[in-house]
Amino acid sequence: MLDFRFLSPTEIIFGKGTETAAGEECKKYGKKVLFHYGGQSIKKSGLYDAIVASLKAAGLDFVELGGVQPNPRLRLVREGIRLCREEGVDFILAVGGGSVIDSAKAIALGVPYGGDVWDFYIGQAQPGQALPTGAVLTLPATGSEASRASVITDQDSGLKRSVNFEPSRPRFAIMNPELTFTLPPFQTACGVADIMSHAMERYFTAVPHVELTDRLCEAVLKTVINNAPMVLSEPENYDARAEIMWAGTLAHNDLLTTGRVSDFASHMIEHELSAFNDVAHGAGLAIVFPAWMRYVYKHDVARFVRFAAEVWNVEPSYFLPERTALEGIKRLRAFFRSLGLPVSLAEIGVYPEHFEALAKNTRRFKGGKVGNFVKLDTDDIIEILRLAQ
Amino acid sequence: MLDFRFLSPTEIIFGKGTETAAGEECKKYGKKVLFHYGGQSIKKSGLYDAIVASLKAAGLDFVELGGVQPNPRLRLVREGIRLCREEGVDFILAVGGGSVIDSAKAIALGVPYGGDVWDFYIGQAQPGQALPTGAVLTLPATGSEASRASVITDQDSGLKRSVNFEPSRPRFAIMNPELTFTLPPFQTACGVADIMSHAMERYFTAVPHVELTDRLCEAVLKTVINNAPMVLSEPENYDARAEIMWAGTLAHNDLLTTGRVSDFASHMIEHELSAFNDVAHGAGLAIVFPAWMRYVYKHDVARFVRFAAEVWNVEPSYFLPERTALEGIKRLRAFFRSLGLPVSLAEIGVYPEHFEALAKNTRRFKGGKVGNFVKLDTDDIIEILRLAQ
Repeated sequence: MLDFRFLSPTEIIFGKGTETAAGEECKKYGKKVLFHYGGQSIKKSGLYDAIVASLKAAGLDFVELGGVQPNPRLRLVREGIRLCREEGVDFILAVGGGSVIDSAKAIALGVPYGGDVWDFYIGQAQPGQALPTGAVLTLPATGSEASRASVITDQDSGLKRSVNFEPSRPRFAIMNPELTFTLPPFQTACGVADIMSHAMERYFTAVPHVELTDRLCEAVLKTVINNAPMVLSEPENYDARAEIMWAGTLAHNDLLTTGRVSDFASHMIEHELSAFNDVAHGAGLAIVFPAWMRYVYKHDVARFVRFAAEVWNVEPSYFLPERTALEGIKRLRAFFRSLGLPVSLAEIGVYPEHFEALAKNTRRFKGGKVGNFVKLDTDDIIEILRLAQ
Repeated sequence: MLDFRFLSPTEIIFGKGTETAAGEECKKYGKKVLFHYGGQSIKKSGLYDAIVASLKAAGLDFVELGGVQPNPRLRLVREGIRLCREEGVDFILAVGGGSVIDSAKAIALGVPYGGDVWDFYIGQAQPGQALPTGAVLTLPATGSEASRASVITDQDSGLKRSVNFEPSRPRFAIMNPELTFTLPPFQTACGVADIMSHAMERYFTAVPHVELTDRLCEAVLKTVINNAPMVLSEPENYDARAEIMWAGTLAHNDLLTTGRVSDFASHMIEHELSAFNDVAHGAGLAIVFPAWMRYVYKHDVARFVRFAAEVWNVEPSYFLPERTALEGIKRLRAFFRSLGLPVSLAEIGVYPEHFEALAKNTRRFKGGKVGNFVKLDTDDIIEILRLAQ
């Protein structure tokens, strides 16, 4: 087990009707709020009105900025920064899924910074401070509600880049599983793939003797695998929605990384995919992750046997461990397909002629290789994309 | 799943040599430190000198108060409060196991309070504030390094009582598994029993559909069960010590309680045992917990079957679930015995003539019944003590 520091100070406010607490929570940290959100869905569902009522009831002044899209755009972030400065905003409330929260974090980083916020994302500057943020989560997926991460896409350059900054963790995350009842099945499935990827990116480590966190990763994965079919067949199953929602937070608040090194190569390859053709992040992961596994499993067959046996209940072929390892990967791919997700690049219109550019973009700001479980160069990434055809 | 709030803001600083960071961490929160510890063991091990050096290197002024005993005493707490007031202490650093940390939390509650600190423990007053504390952990067991809890014994009245107060969570917990290499086997085993009890007290809940936290509890239990024999046979096995140490924190920082109701009846019965004859807390739990299980398992046989199958790898007797349930309890008791712990009251000199007083004391400040999984009255507690004979 490696040495580590772990700090996860986001207060989780979980349960039915908790969105009504938003105003009082914001009031603990700020006086003037930016209410940041996405499209029409929160207006249709009544959540928009509930948040406005809660902010008003708390006596808070606020301005609003909607229009966050999936793969949130740098352009709107810059608009948000301008708005916050003009209006003297001192707290940002993100109401939506990971895209809205990531956009809020980017705005929060940009407001106190003299230069352009994109500098942080392309490694040209290190953030020193950020406005405080809070989240009302409507889509369990990215774990952004309690993570350090923010992922932004610059449409002009076609790049999707992330930044991890400790003070970017939201002060609070309001999580009401009822708010996820109306999610379309495809979005639900994409969220499930994202949550599972976060757990798997931590699970596949080269660090030995990390038993507790192995088991915590498996707990998250098994819970999600068990509850995902339930929420697809019964969208208003509160408990199943709640299991997935809480699993989504724990998959990415860094608990599962304690004492180990994670491998975000699949995530980085996927970021290029979705910057390239705007495929939903979770759908891209469902394509990339099993292919990555098939490419790297020989580096630690025993770990893939454990994955197959513990997560997928594959009966180990003791004398043919590779067979067990491959069966686990096969089940993961079949599971993603059963959720209605694409599992090949052809399904989303990405073909071999795109592979080289995608592979190069993945490494563009990394200089050397990507990944930790196995370090990948451009040729490796092309091979993984071939396996994902 | 029940609604919940979860906040666990203690910063964990985990790994080799981390005790040297103590001074710099204290400096973030205070100017004058009370260095609180137990007996001679930290002087023999060199930890005392390392802490003094670290406090001095950080330029901090400090006073010290040693002498904390297992089942920490109210008398020393009162002395600590007096000392902190006289010396203008604004931060308390606890260096030791749960007893030292609990004692530090009690002092931290008492310093800003006008009345007697014991008022909080017997429910006569609610704490409003506390001095900040930090911990350097030397014994994984109580989880006090990141919990709200503090347990204190008043020798005059023979009562052991606890208080749970959110601001009592230490600001940081420094955890170096190397510091646990020299723990005697019996103390190691007592710690293991305490950690397992914290996970089991959360596991045995009457709240339905709490799958993720069921699995998290199982992850903690299985890791501890797997690593405990390793640390007993190889006391300097760093990784095994590290697994147990981190499991001990997660077992009691409230993560495993999210969305469910825990049952601390066994803990409360044990508190009376150790107030009565000063048996080590973990040893008392090893006696009480299996007996509690045998008394209550019929209230939810399925949960005990899950415990047997998932935690102890008992092959389920599908048509005789009670047999599976009882086999799980039997394996728990055998495991405690294998660690060198007592598993019957006779072994620690507690006999049937003591049962009624013990049962009555357990409920003395609770008014009604104790426990949540099953609510217990005096007669129930006596029956459990009989099963523990």
